[in-house]
Amino acid sequence: MRLRAFPILVDGHWRPAGAAETFRAVNPATGEFLPGEYPISPWTDIAEALAAGARAASALAAIGPEPVARFLELFPKLLEGRKEELVATAHLETALPSEPRLGSVELPRLLDQLRQAAAACRDRSWCRATIDSKLNIRSMLGPLGGPVVIMGPNNFPFAYNALGGGDFASALAAGNPILAKSHPGHPSTTRIMAEAALEALDAAGLPSASVQLLYHFAPEDGLRLVSHPSVAAAAFTGSRLSGMALKEAADRAGKPIYLEMSSANPVFILPGAPAERPEEIAGELSQSCMLAGGQMCTKPGLVVILDDPAGRAFVNRVKSAFEGSEPVILLSPKVLEGLREASARLARDGAERIAGRREPSGPGFRFSPTLFTLSGTGFLRDPAAFQVESFGTFSLIVLAKDMAEMKEIASCLEGHLTGSVYSHSDGRDDREYDAIEPILRTKVGRLLNDKMPTGVAVSPAMNHGGPYPATGHPGFTAVGFPAAMFRFAALRCYDHVRADRLPPELKDVNPTGTMWRFVDGEWTQRSL
Amino acid sequence: MRLRAFPILVDGHWRPAGAAETFRAVNPATGEFLPGEYPISPWTDIAEALAAGARAASALAAIGPEPVARFLELFPKLLEGRKEELVATAHLETALPSEPRLGSVELPRLLDQLRQAAAACRDRSWCRATIDSKLNIRSMLGPLGGPVVIMGPNNFPFAYNALGGGDFASALAAGNPILAKSHPGHPSTTRIMAEAALEALDAAGLPSASVQLLYHFAPEDGLRLVSHPSVAAAAFTGSRLSGMALKEAADRAGKPIYLEMSSANPVFILPGAPAERPEEIAGELSQSCMLAGGQMCTKPGLVVILDDPAGRAFVNRVKSAFEGSEPVILLSPKVLEGLREASARLARDGAERIAGRREPSGPGFRFSPTLFTLSGTGFLRDPAAFQVESFGTFSLIVLAKDMAEMKEIASCLEGHLTGSVYSHSDGRDDREYDAIEPILRTKVGRLLNDKMPTGVAVSPAMNHGGPYPATGHPGFTAVGFPAAMFRFAALRCYDHVRADRLPPELKDVNPTGTMWRFVDGEWTQRSL
Repeated sequence: MRLRAFPILVDGHWRPAGAAETFRAVNPATGEFLPGEYPISPWTDIAEALAAGARAASALAAIGPEPVARFLELFPKLLEGRKEELVATAHLETALPSEPRLGSVELPRLLDQLRQAAAACRDRSWCRATIDSKLNIRSMLGPLGGPVVIMGPNNFPFAYNALGGGDFASALAAGNPILAKSHPGHPSTTRIMAEAALEALDAAGLPSASVQLLYHFAPEDGLRLVSHPSVAAAAFTGSRLSGMALKEAADRAGKPIYLEMSSANPVFILPGAPAERPEEIAGELSQSCMLAGGQMCTKPGLVVILDDPAGRAFVNRVKSAFEGSEPVILLSPKVLEGLREASARLARDGAERIAGRREPSGPGFRFSPTLFTLSGTGFLRDPAAFQVESFGTFSLIVLAKDMAEMKEIASCLEGHLTGSVYSHSDGRDDREYDAIEPILRTKVGRLLNDKMPTGVAVSPAMNHGGPYPATGHPGFTAVGFPAAMFRFAALRCYDHVRADRLPPELKDVNPTGTMWRFVDGEWTQRSL
Repeated sequence: MRLRAFPILVDGHWRPAGAAETFRAVNPATGEFLPGEYPISPWTDIAEALAAGARAASALAAIGPEPVARFLELFPKLLEGRKEELVATAHLETALPSEPRLGSVELPRLLDQLRQAAAACRDRSWCRATIDSKLNIRSMLGPLGGPVVIMGPNNFPFAYNALGGGDFASALAAGNPILAKSHPGHPSTTRIMAEAALEALDAAGLPSASVQLLYHFAPEDGLRLVSHPSVAAAAFTGSRLSGMALKEAADRAGKPIYLEMSSANPVFILPGAPAERPEEIAGELSQSCMLAGGQMCTKPGLVVILDDPAGRAFVNRVKSAFEGSEPVILLSPKVLEGLREASARLARDGAERIAGRREPSGPGFRFSPTLFTLSGTGFLRDPAAFQVESFGTFSLIVLAKDMAEMKEIASCLEGHLTGSVYSHSDGRDDREYDAIEPILRTKVGRLLNDKMPTGVAVSPAMNHGGPYPATGHPGFTAVGFPAAMFRFAALRCYDHVRADRLPPELKDVNPTGTMWRFVDGEWTQRSL
């Protein structure tokens, strides 16, 4: 068994894992195992990667950002060259549509992210070089001094892949070596990405352990890893349960960990909106819920609308859209099981299932788009229970009896990634907006108007983050350059350090001529 | 007892604590209790302050930064007017010299910090407004949406006071209401500051619970407080033991907490430095250790030098300086006990006490400046034990047998606030510097050349922070505007939000005309 398993990538080489155990990915469309045996690494593999990663951290610090930028430019080129293979493999492993999703949406997004990371790395403005010329104190953000562990989710085999996705790109662009753990749902996709990464790494002249890959390990080894003295930080995207366990382990050891755990992405529909454009909004909501089988961290899982004629008509439209939709194929039996549990829980707690009663037939992990409704009073009986994320084509519409109740529902929200407010275009809902917005604002990372939350643009102004328990810290975003890089950086001050010993970013002469620096209270591209 | 105790400041009013128990501060110079009975608040006091603080958070969000800036300007004026009373009281409670320390160093620093915070608040550039005009996504840092708990240390009754010090100023300037807990060592100083704050608060038109004060509570109530759902975040400066307990409680609840816990502030003296200017450096080191009785978070507590003739001569100079110094009066019996324990521990672990053997006579908490030496081999036998902070006039000089051992010592450091390197001015130590610096750089927040770490300038480029366990997160500083404010801010993204609903900082028109914003990849003061 062990000899037939794919090798792991440690310290610049593909070598057999020290594994007695292996796993195989499953085709969600058929429920059958895919070929390709992958190793479950024992701690010895992890320890070796950690030691190599620590050496790579020092080596990366010595060579500066240029080789990293070259890698981040070359890597997407190589991925692009293997597009066909990547899309076919990811489709087999996730059942996500090859087109447009994988080939024309997610892969381009992945490439764009890597290129934006390369640009941020080369530009150097991200490090917020700050110079106090009078006191000769200078500071900047710099790498953390050890490998960063990245654990990616199941739902974006390209864009959030532990090897190559957003966390990878931002941690590496900030100068940290990467120790990636593949999601076990798509090991072959990850392997192809790692092959391209190794080729780019050699060509760019990066230290050999700048990018390493393990496919799987025991949960307890994951806890040990994120709290290990040699680890600089970790990033995890996935379930709240796993995230909380990792957070506890990392917190105890004083290790930064960035988590994207769960979000119901509440949508508030103010009275004028369904009166003005019911069809449009119902369409947007249904489409947003269906996207990728609802397996998006920003899927609108909680909708709040008034229990008036326009509100009830709106609910009926959404119900029809859900009922008219084909069953979706989910990523894994775990996702399917989660949705079945959520359905049972909501029904037990008094919500009414108005779409998705039928269990679909066919092989694999199929699920009928499911919609629940609930009264505001019902919601307020146990607000925590009704804002749990249900990953998949699944949403809950809460019918509030009046604006006061809607406001109270907003007050009972915990932290979420996003919050949307729909209102009449002529401003007639402005008073209601002004009542809801200040409450919602402190509960979500991204506030939207007249727009569903799915579709997270890779923009410097994006916040893909939010208050706990959506993430572990309200000040950071996982998407957008340079902001996503701030997570993987330490503040480094140089006090009275001799001029020739300063890093290039803090010397009097601007090292690129265009880098932005905060000099004596002004942002400038000039040299001192 | 209860009726005679000073009242607490809750929701804009001085009112009796719900306390059965009280405490009194001690004069460290005499060891005797000072007059003035202060309450130990039960949970009901805390709960009331929390509820009022939550209301104040909403009210502050509604009125914007101008009233906060007015408060931060008026408050130092009022404090200045009460200078005599403040200095006399702080001197009684801490035994720190009235002049120059309290009256001419620390109080001016406090006032300067508050004024810098006011300027940052009014300027608004701190919020890093970021605008992507093409996608109409905009983001900024904003307040956290609840009260911030501040717990200050014993060693800076003005500049780091929970009510008025650096954490207070930065959290409030970022728009958060403050729930301060006085250090029990200086309640009367804190009370005077709170009286001035309340006067400034009323005059500036701030919500009544924007600044609240409790004097003391049980440690378990502190843990409950930092993990309470209504709390937005906490800041703590103090011992590692207390800091770790608070961190664990806050982490479990997903609440951000900023800790400044302990630091040995290693100083590396490269071979050429003691050869070139032995007297100067020995003087700087001794003075830095004596400052405020060594009760500085940046006191150099660990010095590493070569065991060669120049190194040994240097040690003798420092020994003489320590021996020639008067005993100091420490802040509390706890500090004195900590130093006695540290002395016993170091002696037991094989270090040699070369100054400070005499127990000083006289009342109060007196301690003779104490210096230990140890071989590099001795240090490397248990590196963790020899870099524990010893708060007070106390330092350890490690004599390394060669540069390889010095480098190994650097490698064994954990996170500290600062690290200094002294070298010959003609560059002859540059090779040694290049060997030590990359190692030291990842272990400390602030790196110094030819300078002792005491004296933390309030500069935008300062980092008073560092890797764990010096603090809880390597990316933040507790000193310097605007950077210290970033700790108390949430990232708030506005996606497709209607123009008239945007906060002023994100509208097309620059709200001040001079605020710096990051617009389409450029830092600019222009409007869109």
